[in-house]
Amino acid sequence: MFLMIKHIVRAQDFDEGFLMDLFSEADEMRRLIKSGNRSTLRKTLEGNIMATLFYEPSTRTRMSFEAAMYRLGGNVISTENASEFSSAVKGETLEDTIRVVSGYVDVIVIRHYDDEVDKGAVDISRVPIINAGSGQGQHPTQTLLDLYTINDILGGLQGIKIAMVGDLKRGRTVKSLSYVLGGKFNGTEIYFVSPENSKMSDNIKDYLNRKKVKWEETSNLNEVLPLVDCVYMTRIQKERFDNEEEYNKAKGQFVMDNSNIGFMKDNAILLHPLPKINEINPEINTNKRSKYFEQAENGLYVRMALLKHVLS
Amino acid sequence: MFLMIKHIVRAQDFDEGFLMDLFSEADEMRRLIKSGNRSTLRKTLEGNIMATLFYEPSTRTRMSFEAAMYRLGGNVISTENASEFSSAVKGETLEDTIRVVSGYVDVIVIRHYDDEVDKGAVDISRVPIINAGSGQGQHPTQTLLDLYTINDILGGLQGIKIAMVGDLKRGRTVKSLSYVLGGKFNGTEIYFVSPENSKMSDNIKDYLNRKKVKWEETSNLNEVLPLVDCVYMTRIQKERFDNEEEYNKAKGQFVMDNSNIGFMKDNAILLHPLPKINEINPEINTNKRSKYFEQAENGLYVRMALLKHVLS
Amino acid sequence: MFLMIKHIVRAQDFDEGFLMDLFSEADEMRRLIKSGNRSTLRKTLEGNIMATLFYEPSTRTRMSFEAAMYRLGGNVISTENASEFSSAVKGETLEDTIRVVSGYVDVIVIRHYDDEVDKGAVDISRVPIINAGSGQGQHPTQTLLDLYTINDILGGLQGIKIAMVGDLKRGRTVKSLSYVLGGKFNGTEIYFVSPENSKMSDNIKDYLNRKKVKWEETSNLNEVLPLVDCVYMTRIQKERFDNEEEYNKAKGQFVMDNSNIGFMKDNAILLHPLPKINEINPEINTNKRSKYFEQAENGLYVRMALLKHVLS
Repeated sequence: MFLMIKHIVRAQDFDEGFLMDLFSEADEMRRLIKSGNRSTLRKTLEGNIMATLFYEPSTRTRMSFEAAMYRLGGNVISTENASEFSSAVKGETLEDTIRVVSGYVDVIVIRHYDDEVDKGAVDISRVPIINAGSGQGQHPTQTLLDLYTINDILGGLQGIKIAMVGDLKRGRTVKSLSYVLGGKFNGTEIYFVSPENSKMSDNIKDYLNRKKVKWEETSNLNEVLPLVDCVYMTRIQKERFDNEEEYNKAKGQFVMDNSNIGFMKDNAILLHPLPKINEINPEINTNKRSKYFEQAENGLYVRMALLKHVLS
Repeated sequence: MFLMIKHIVRAQDFDEGFLMDLFSEADEMRRLIKSGNRSTLRKTLEGNIMATLFYEPSTRTRMSFEAAMYRLGGNVISTENASEFSSAVKGETLEDTIRVVSGYVDVIVIRHYDDEVDKGAVDISRVPIINAGSGQGQHPTQTLLDLYTINDILGGLQGIKIAMVGDLKRGRTVKSLSYVLGGKFNGTEIYFVSPENSKMSDNIKDYLNRKKVKWEETSNLNEVLPLVDCVYMTRIQKERFDNEEEYNKAKGQFVMDNSNIGFMKDNAILLHPLPKINEINPEINTNKRSKYFEQAENGLYVRMALLKHVLS
Repeated sequence: MFLMIKHIVRAQDFDEGFLMDLFSEADEMRRLIKSGNRSTLRKTLEGNIMATLFYEPSTRTRMSFEAAMYRLGGNVISTENASEFSSAVKGETLEDTIRVVSGYVDVIVIRHYDDEVDKGAVDISRVPIINAGSGQGQHPTQTLLDLYTINDILGGLQGIKIAMVGDLKRGRTVKSLSYVLGGKFNGTEIYFVSPENSKMSDNIKDYLNRKKVKWEETSNLNEVLPLVDCVYMTRIQKERFDNEEEYNKAKGQFVMDNSNIGFMKDNAILLHPLPKINEINPEINTNKRSKYFEQAENGLYVRMALLKHVLS
């Protein structure tokens, strides 16, 4: 019998059926956690070990994966900065690392600076690989929690009008989200709002064109705000710019605060993958449309559901 | 019903009742660990997750918290150097980090370079925050194990004559200890013994004056030794000095060794929060008055008691 | 009653009886893991805590120890880079660190840059110390899994003809392996194949001479290949060379690939402690003689057996 290993590496691979099953599992996880009914949960993945191999810094992604694993009764082996403290400094290939680590644990969660990280890893690994962010191209589990949050609050994923704001060129969350929302659901309309030097990359636009998704590019945030169901803000990621000058051109152009959040529809939502810096003024943290902290919390439930999915 | 979250952030908040309850719990923890009776203990915090967010290096504080959590059956999510490997490098505020992490775990232990770290964090967190050292001002859980050790060996906390030695200006343990021993117990007398450029800060002296605690400042260690029940040595912390020159002025002035430990009373005790470098000569490690290793071990029992306290 | 603490610090201390007992335990661990029968295993070390103190980077050694501990039901407290993030930066001696940490946990696994790390540590620790690599001289647990693999595939450890290839001067695995294979088993013959500036150190050669073990030094790898049962390749470790020039002299001289692996006997095996870089061409990863990934996996079973041994 051939047992397929369930890798989670590219947002394009998600279909509606998979998403809806996962979301209903995540609902159940949320219900059990919130009701304080945790002892049943801890039987779910008892005896399983997860390795987190992070070649780039992270707090919330790594911590939510680790918390998810512990809530389900599993254990965790962790590298905070694999590129500095592991065999990578000695020149080992990622393939070799994966081959060996997959002999020790039951699932590997990996964040890597290389866009193509998943390719070699997936062929070699004897256990499921979960991509926790690769290069500037993919962050599929972030997309899962983004979609879960949209679906949960807006009641569905069909016909969503969304503005993606910030560094769309270097941001991986907006790309993964475009793939799924654009490619797998009907009636999606996307507004790309970005600085001139940080526009959404062509491969995504081509993909959306092929899928006949309506999209528009603009640098006028306030004009877009009244039109959408969801504003998806992202950080201008200093660490991904080639130089300070380019960063300075891009930063600070788009900010959500009390002066413009009211332009959004009454029941529209403001999301952000976090960490946020000055693109969202803390004064709107308590605005009813601001859902980014709820979105971050959903990361726990969605990753619990995901770990259960790949390990059973 | 309003459930108060039990944060542990400032030594000034401890009162005698709290301390005595905690110490008797710590006694029980010590008894159970030493008797090898560990399986009961592991039910105590089963299913709970602790996050340790350390923005400054530490071995014993982090490790004793983590060991404490495991001994009680809980799990741990850990950042060894949050300032380098987490969202902090991307510019996220501590408030945002706390808000998100407190959605994943049941208690947060934080060490931070900022004196005021507790303020924002406490208002925002949905779970208990334990301050594992903040800036140059507070190290409340160290104070708990210091007091536990003094109480355990000297038989009480009233009327303690204590010499605090070393870098009193930049050291946080001596400040937290002064707050509690000076402010909450009768008859305390404190001798501050420090280099000229490392004297105890005025806010502590003012506090002691308001509380009518007797204190004295001196640079003659040997004269003080015969007068006290406890010598509390601290390290001249190179990393906290503005420059090498100032450090060189301060270092090496006060050393305990075979030449002067005999000046202490026969039943007086020598404590040190550790790590120690040359301020204590290893030749006195086995002297009957040297209790710093016992003190460090007590950290485990006191932190077990503390975790049980805040989580139940 | 005097209870001896079972430290694992020097390969010279292993004898045949110990090895065979350990290997049969490791066989059992492998059988239970491979058969998916994990729940029994998790009772083995329930409630035990292991601290990993790594003063040098590592992936596979640390991770396999941690996975081993979790598979047996224990817990882990970990420092990825102790020399940077712990009290070591404040100038604390290793002795003090060990003394304190051994009050918190049940076993300490330590990797250190100092050859003599074990000496002080062992005298002081109240719990078993396992040396996970010290200086350029010892890596006893690597030797255990090397020997386990040789014994498992070649059917015994007597009369083994082995070629050790690469940086023999700075490599610790080949030294630990020479001690045991040369000193504890009959009929061993060793070929040392290394660059001119990286020859096996004299203390090992002297040891082998005293034990009357046949050894030979050469720089002609291909001539040796047909003669041996096992080729033990090692990496030229850039980080251990005094300067780039010396490294450049040594690197790239000995490579195993499709052009020469066929020179080996049909049933001979190729091992490598990993990480490997260009000394093994990935094209031979699937050659039937290449056993280095199996060898790495065996690290899990051997370390499980070892942890059980020292903790019971």
